[in-house]
Amino acid sequence: MNVAPAMSDFDFAGWMAEQLRQVEHALDAWVSTVGDDGADHHAPAALVAAMRYAVLDGGKRLRPLLVLASHAAAASAAPQGSGASAALRAACAVELIHAYSLVHDDMPCMDNDVLRRGKPTVHVQFGEASALLAGDALQALAFELLTPADASVPATVQARLCGVLSRASGSAGMAGGQAIDLASVGVGLTEQQLRTMHQLKTGALLQASVVMGAQCAGVSGPALQALQAYGAAIGLAFQVVDDILDVTADSATLGKTAGKDADNGKPTYVSVMGLDASRGYAQSLRAQALQALRDSGLPDTRALQALAHMVVDRTS
Amino acid sequence: MNVAPAMSDFDFAGWMAEQLRQVEHALDAWVSTVGDDGADHHAPAALVAAMRYAVLDGGKRLRPLLVLASHAAAASAAPQGSGASAALRAACAVELIHAYSLVHDDMPCMDNDVLRRGKPTVHVQFGEASALLAGDALQALAFELLTPADASVPATVQARLCGVLSRASGSAGMAGGQAIDLASVGVGLTEQQLRTMHQLKTGALLQASVVMGAQCAGVSGPALQALQAYGAAIGLAFQVVDDILDVTADSATLGKTAGKDADNGKPTYVSVMGLDASRGYAQSLRAQALQALRDSGLPDTRALQALAHMVVDRTS
Repeated sequence: MNVAPAMSDFDFAGWMAEQLRQVEHALDAWVSTVGDDGADHHAPAALVAAMRYAVLDGGKRLRPLLVLASHAAAASAAPQGSGASAALRAACAVELIHAYSLVHDDMPCMDNDVLRRGKPTVHVQFGEASALLAGDALQALAFELLTPADASVPATVQARLCGVLSRASGSAGMAGGQAIDLASVGVGLTEQQLRTMHQLKTGALLQASVVMGAQCAGVSGPALQALQAYGAAIGLAFQVVDDILDVTADSATLGKTAGKDADNGKPTYVSVMGLDASRGYAQSLRAQALQALRDSGLPDTRALQALAHMVVDRTS
Repeated sequence: MNVAPAMSDFDFAGWMAEQLRQVEHALDAWVSTVGDDGADHHAPAALVAAMRYAVLDGGKRLRPLLVLASHAAAASAAPQGSGASAALRAACAVELIHAYSLVHDDMPCMDNDVLRRGKPTVHVQFGEASALLAGDALQALAFELLTPADASVPATVQARLCGVLSRASGSAGMAGGQAIDLASVGVGLTEQQLRTMHQLKTGALLQASVVMGAQCAGVSGPALQALQAYGAAIGLAFQVVDDILDVTADSATLGKTAGKDADNGKPTYVSVMGLDASRGYAQSLRAQALQALRDSGLPDTRALQALAHMVVDRTS
């Protein structure tokens, strides 16, 4: 029996810096007027400028990191050469879906936010019509990235990735969660309803990130199920911590207006279950996520472990 | 050598009625709170209501008909059982992309239309935020339809269909064309610039419809290239005829405000090349499309021939 590699031997900061370097480089190359095949594909420069502004803005890249960490864990059980190219594409694709959702969320008819990470939002910078189209085109680009015409990603993997990403993005995923969120302002939600809303709105795409990374290395069966459980716990923990930080952190640390959700009458975990219980819940979700990794039977899950700690212990 | 079946033996009206019956039935089933697997997939009912309103509204379904006609032509050269299930999914997927584009186009920040086919537009009926989200979810649903979890569509076909549809929808396709269209109001375009704009805005998805239908039956090589040429000619003819009708038809026949593009200062084929030359151009595109079908070497292209005539000879 293999002994799991020790966390103390794992340079998480170094691993993360290298993954982020690859992701930023790939996004810069792929959100472009030049097509995947290297030829100019005649996308209008103004539209691509809005898309690049939305994507290349220094986000935390949590979803790409989950894809790549999950791929690393899955690949540790697989022979070498196990889908690294697919994993980088999947990492960027989930980030494009996340980026498009922020662009549309910020628009006047939704949250009407004028600043994101200290910069004017896309519709402020480029106009509402361009923001709408840039978001639409970013969603399409996610599926373009998953379906390269060359042989770098096997067709079976392309099909599975498109299937998982579309379901996590659509009416039973992210878009559905946003619709529930919109309808919930000023309305009392039960803890169960709140959990469903977040499971769709943010959880589905976070979980899909983990699943897609594993699928790039061809993992299926019980190991995939364990990673799905990890993804579900992390997705929920992410939102619980978000709600805790909304009431405990100051705006400067948070990089956005603290207390905004509470002020807007949006139900949060803190408003539904209280601050102490929310903190306890986040700890218990971390424990569930780490247990799922042990259950996976995968030899090296250190990057996923470290990401679980990062999600729960973050201060912004 | 096979003799091509005669057009006089082809019941186009009967063929079309049967295809439309299948498409309407499939859209009704798939744009739903019930997932592809028959289980309730927890999409919020209000969001799905807006999606259904946008899709199940009696459009002409030209794109689904092109998919199914192209599939019929391709299947006439293939053994039996050649991807009919995939073709119906592809037909509905392109229609969902078309439907989402109309929802977003009609929004106040774009064309600000309050009526479509005599009904209030989606944002008028459901609010702007719901229209935005319904459009986003319809785009995702298109890719969900193309990636069924069961074995009804081979993974290689799923991957190819997602690749073609995403490229036709994105920054180098439909969304890109809309961006050029937005930027072109009140600006003089050359005939070449006008052609590029329409090739992206409407041509790309019409051509993709033809390509996807053929791919469902596994056609590739010269036959696929010929069908691509047919799709390019039909896509362009569709727009030229649209521009002719904008100045020659009355609003009642057209079902929308005649003369609107000209009044808005949008460049059209008629404004750039004149009415007579536009009519001649439409005829020449029809001839190109029909020649491409002869070049394809496919045994039975009658439905595609009939659709070419329908596109050019339509009066609304």
